[in-house]
Amino acid sequence: MNLQEAIKEKINSKREEYTQFLQSVVQQPSTTGNELKAQTIVADRLKELGLEVDVWVPDFEELKKSEFFNPRRDNYENSPNVVGILKGKKNGRSLILNGHIDVVPAGDESKWTDHPYSGKVIEGKLYGRGTTDMKGGNMSTLIALETIIDLGIELKGDVIYESVIEEETGGAGTLAAIQRGYKADVALIPEPSEMKIFPKQQGSLWFEVTVEGVSAHGGTRYEGVSAIEKGWIVFQEILRLEETRNKPLRKDPLYKNNPIPIPINIGQFNGGYFPSAVPEEAKIQGRYGIAPGETITEAKEMFQSMLENLKSIDEWFEKYPVSVEWGGIHLPPGGCDDDHPMLEVLKNNYYKVEKEEPIIAGSTWATDGGLLTQAGGIPSIVFGPGTTSMAHFTDEYVDLEKMFRTAEITALSIIEWCEINE
Amino acid sequence: MNLQEAIKEKINSKREEYTQFLQSVVQQPSTTGNELKAQTIVADRLKELGLEVDVWVPDFEELKKSEFFNPRRDNYENSPNVVGILKGKKNGRSLILNGHIDVVPAGDESKWTDHPYSGKVIEGKLYGRGTTDMKGGNMSTLIALETIIDLGIELKGDVIYESVIEEETGGAGTLAAIQRGYKADVALIPEPSEMKIFPKQQGSLWFEVTVEGVSAHGGTRYEGVSAIEKGWIVFQEILRLEETRNKPLRKDPLYKNNPIPIPINIGQFNGGYFPSAVPEEAKIQGRYGIAPGETITEAKEMFQSMLENLKSIDEWFEKYPVSVEWGGIHLPPGGCDDDHPMLEVLKNNYYKVEKEEPIIAGSTWATDGGLLTQAGGIPSIVFGPGTTSMAHFTDEYVDLEKMFRTAEITALSIIEWCEINE
Repeated sequence: MNLQEAIKEKINSKREEYTQFLQSVVQQPSTTGNELKAQTIVADRLKELGLEVDVWVPDFEELKKSEFFNPRRDNYENSPNVVGILKGKKNGRSLILNGHIDVVPAGDESKWTDHPYSGKVIEGKLYGRGTTDMKGGNMSTLIALETIIDLGIELKGDVIYESVIEEETGGAGTLAAIQRGYKADVALIPEPSEMKIFPKQQGSLWFEVTVEGVSAHGGTRYEGVSAIEKGWIVFQEILRLEETRNKPLRKDPLYKNNPIPIPINIGQFNGGYFPSAVPEEAKIQGRYGIAPGETITEAKEMFQSMLENLKSIDEWFEKYPVSVEWGGIHLPPGGCDDDHPMLEVLKNNYYKVEKEEPIIAGSTWATDGGLLTQAGGIPSIVFGPGTTSMAHFTDEYVDLEKMFRTAEITALSIIEWCEINE
Repeated sequence: MNLQEAIKEKINSKREEYTQFLQSVVQQPSTTGNELKAQTIVADRLKELGLEVDVWVPDFEELKKSEFFNPRRDNYENSPNVVGILKGKKNGRSLILNGHIDVVPAGDESKWTDHPYSGKVIEGKLYGRGTTDMKGGNMSTLIALETIIDLGIELKGDVIYESVIEEETGGAGTLAAIQRGYKADVALIPEPSEMKIFPKQQGSLWFEVTVEGVSAHGGTRYEGVSAIEKGWIVFQEILRLEETRNKPLRKDPLYKNNPIPIPINIGQFNGGYFPSAVPEEAKIQGRYGIAPGETITEAKEMFQSMLENLKSIDEWFEKYPVSVEWGGIHLPPGGCDDDHPMLEVLKNNYYKVEKEEPIIAGSTWATDGGLLTQAGGIPSIVFGPGTTSMAHFTDEYVDLEKMFRTAEITALSIIEWCEINE
């Protein structure tokens, strides 16, 4: 039996066990600030595998020293990072497997078929918030690692398994892992790429725009100015900016099948405080995609100039200029060189398992890869089993078959990259 | 000295005292649920005047029996109604002086020049939330009553002074006063009419419309449907409905100088829950003006048919119909007959004090007059000192000079209506 067959057989023999373990992780609603229980389960598993395990609470003061830090909270109590290290036997090429444990909120729970944290398996799909983004992905890399250990394979290079907090709301977890000194020759991030390989990942910033109106009694609303109506003008200009920013990327082969390569998503629009008063303030919150190769500063300047131009559309904005705050997610774009050797390794092993060429594309969202690349100097590649369209979505699921096949490709790639210590 | 001179002189001699008393009432932030302290101050004053005073907590179960009840809460603890009765000596014509003690929230406090509940007097204006709407109005009727008592005038008919809760959020206070049996031949409501006389008052309903979208990750927002964008279509149709509904009223002489006689004010627009998720729900809340003579049922049907027509504008609404809830303010339109004798009384006494004809118009907002008229069978007229445009507004104030002149006109009108018992 060759190595590939051995890996496949080993994984298949433990499908039930892996599924149950993933369920136990999914059943922890590990939204920002609530990661402790899920992280404890992961850390215990890594310890059972015999890895060196490092569990620590990120230090706010230390994080503050980094230009990439954009805090959402001022302490990380109950939100530890977990890192497990499989030490290589010689100085082989090293690898980080990076995945976040935090999940976005479940949204309107009544729209879910089952409870959002059920972990139910139906027809090969495991359901729950965070299954696709990205506990199923983390599971695929964990299975890869566990399989290598199960098969008694010793590697030359180190494999560093990172289960980090807070990717969804800022990136503090990965930044803390970089600051703690975890480095490798390349990082693999199993975000939900649908088994596509993403050598480039866009960045993402969260914005909050404030639009002013003038309040009045609703019965004489013509004496006020609605911040909601003015906010709609801003909304449309944001969409126009998205169009402008995406034009050049439409020619990029990595984004050829993508209708909006770097989207600006307006996720929240909140205006007014009382039904019978004219709203005097509206807040527009969203995420702003940053093109690979663009800096955060350049992207912010472009947004700011759109806001300044508003006064040429409506003189209201001359007297009441619109302001923007950048808070929450603040992830630079990331990636690796086009000819990075890990890309070849992944492509080859993908072909071995899938019997077809992989799709190479640019990511439709930001990942911690931007921090790994820009703050850590570690080239990063995204490759994961989750379904992109299910991320942040009602009835989110991960396809277990794809998760196991991703694990197989990942195990083969780890072995090829880090090399067997004969 | 004639009666008018005596009234004017008496009021003028107590301007300082009345101003301080009004300040003490304004300094109580009597928003819905927090009316107790302000009501206690009012009740104490009525007792000092020697009135029969009735202080009671409205009974939820009793209120529920009325078709006009539209609850916002399920108990009225800490929100008592206060009624003071000046008994007439013979069976003369009776009068209700009705005013609400509750105020709308202050909004963004940082926009106020002084604290929203300062009660500061600057250049003849007394500032604070609720001064114009309608504690200054309540003060003008209280001064009128107190002046009649000060002058030792005995009336033939009863005067019933009502300080009610919850006009701004539903009308439960006035409804409870009607249910408790307080009746009169006519009601005078000193809402902020700027000393205009309003023989007709529009009704007002609060609505909450729910618009659905489909969530997705913000990075692939094209895979979702934004409830905010769909909500904007609904927003525009609501404004179109307003246009349709106001056309016939533009010919009504009572509304001749009013750009939007019965406005639909969209006070709140809230969509989405997360910056980097496509918003799956938006809620639009507002107040819906009801034309004098229109029933609440007719008005609701017109709104409903606008919502049903949405599918002809965007087929999205075929699959995801928009729903409406009617909650909060639920006030029918009110008023009196065109030839009601109290109108003549008010007009005559207005002329005596102001030396010019009063402006007769239709109210730009709903008042408790609708409940008095429709639930109580009591014709109602609005006449008050407050500035309409300052109601629900930052830096709300009442002009003290106008308040005292309104008190003078009101005292003369009470005496003419209820008649002196010689």
